[in-house]
Amino acid sequence: MREPFYEYIQKLQDRITATLENVDGKARFRQDLWERPGGGGGRTRVIENGNVFEKGGVNISAVHGALPETMQNYLDVKDADFFACGLSLVIHPKNPFVPTVHANWRYFEMYDKQGSIVDQWFGGGQDLTPYYLFEEDAKHFHNVCKTACDKHDTNFYPKYKQRCDEYFHNAHRNEARGVGGLFFDHLKKTNTMSMQDRYNFVTEVGNSFLEAYVPIIERRKDIPYSQAHRDWQEIRRGRYVEFNLVHDKGTLFGLKTNGRIESILMSLPPHVQWRYDHHPEAGSEEEKLLKVLKRPVDWV
Amino acid sequence: MREPFYEYIQKLQDRITATLENVDGKARFRQDLWERPGGGGGRTRVIENGNVFEKGGVNISAVHGALPETMQNYLDVKDADFFACGLSLVIHPKNPFVPTVHANWRYFEMYDKQGSIVDQWFGGGQDLTPYYLFEEDAKHFHNVCKTACDKHDTNFYPKYKQRCDEYFHNAHRNEARGVGGLFFDHLKKTNTMSMQDRYNFVTEVGNSFLEAYVPIIERRKDIPYSQAHRDWQEIRRGRYVEFNLVHDKGTLFGLKTNGRIESILMSLPPHVQWRYDHHPEAGSEEEKLLKVLKRPVDWV
Repeated sequence: MREPFYEYIQKLQDRITATLENVDGKARFRQDLWERPGGGGGRTRVIENGNVFEKGGVNISAVHGALPETMQNYLDVKDADFFACGLSLVIHPKNPFVPTVHANWRYFEMYDKQGSIVDQWFGGGQDLTPYYLFEEDAKHFHNVCKTACDKHDTNFYPKYKQRCDEYFHNAHRNEARGVGGLFFDHLKKTNTMSMQDRYNFVTEVGNSFLEAYVPIIERRKDIPYSQAHRDWQEIRRGRYVEFNLVHDKGTLFGLKTNGRIESILMSLPPHVQWRYDHHPEAGSEEEKLLKVLKRPVDWV
Repeated sequence: MREPFYEYIQKLQDRITATLENVDGKARFRQDLWERPGGGGGRTRVIENGNVFEKGGVNISAVHGALPETMQNYLDVKDADFFACGLSLVIHPKNPFVPTVHANWRYFEMYDKQGSIVDQWFGGGQDLTPYYLFEEDAKHFHNVCKTACDKHDTNFYPKYKQRCDEYFHNAHRNEARGVGGLFFDHLKKTNTMSMQDRYNFVTEVGNSFLEAYVPIIERRKDIPYSQAHRDWQEIRRGRYVEFNLVHDKGTLFGLKTNGRIESILMSLPPHVQWRYDHHPEAGSEEEKLLKVLKRPVDWV
């Protein structure tokens, strides 16, 4: 499973970066190859200062070796060898009417001392963070997510949609990071799902990403905006930073286990603001977004 | 001890905000009084968009009640009542040649069921975060710190200077947040130091703050700067955010115990940038700063 999935994410990275470059029309992804001292490495691709994309990263990595101690504690296992690979992306568009998007698809294997697989699972998801709410966009994104899920199990969409709402939540602000999408983890073999079935599901979601996001970019990227729109975007990006640095398990895990810092923190937005006790005007478009972030919405 | 110290920080807040308003010449501190549901409250004062200060907060609080569970775990004690008060400040000047400063002085008491004090201590410190290094400024700041310490114990400055270097360290970047200063905690009664001695020491440091910082502002606030200087300041402010949200115990503790979010996060800078894998030019002033942040310097 590790070979086909790693091959899959390599090709998916190519497809996503080529498509986004095409959408941007100006900036190109810069590629950095890196190696992990303990085994493996990654291919980081970052785009900056484009026509459409202010900053974004589409990264893959495949790492292996002895399971680090922090990860042993987290998974509650002893000495073990592991393999993990995945694709992680965060795109911060320039225009405040185009939402930020995040997606991740990953696969994990653990081995006994003889090198036999003792555990394996998939994880991942994709979620949308608008600065201005277009219900049409949230519905489109969720519809694509649901269509991908329903091909495999009609229980998946409601379950993973709810997990996404629960996970991407800024508890200290009591508000959602965005309008959600899908989030799943520890997708293992069951009586009814083989690992191949899991692979088929996760890659189905991966394949749906561009269809979920690109039409939204195309619809919004040329809407004129003012400095006030931009300020609001930068203030909301502050919440994105707060989530990623305070709550996101993947980010904190990376920071505490000597991951490649620049690849992990490519998720942080390019320009960000914090203002003291900022509140949008009653009845404004900005306030409309906040109301939606206070309580998960059934978009489909 | 709680009454005199709380009175002290109230007056110190008045003195610091009045002096900084005077230095700024334009913006005034806005005051917010708030109450804590479990007991006590605070007086938050924030300045924004001044001539000199882009954003800053000088806050006091005095809270009491049943020790929250997270705090019980942290202190490794059971059910107890507590009282805590302190002054916390972070100042982000506009001019990239004026350093950011942080300071905090606090007092903590814990009681048994009869209301007798079973434990009490002081904590705090002050530290400087320049964007461009003027050795003269770092020396001045540390000299004032040392002078305040030496009046009480000549071992204090080296000890608390080292703790400051250790604490304000962005471990995931392997670099200091700034050029340090003082950091101390759990200053309890000993054979040679009464709580009154501790009070005298902590208030001596508090009294030294304006002398440590204001001359640096005056020297640097009118230096002309370019957009490139400003970009560097905003990029470095990103490191400040990373420290406060990933490593700072006080911030995380506040976020996880339903503290007043806006008072806690007033520490975050107003405008911040993150660029992928940014490195200053070899031999530049920006690189000079980074070198100093890689290894603590004896400034005195």
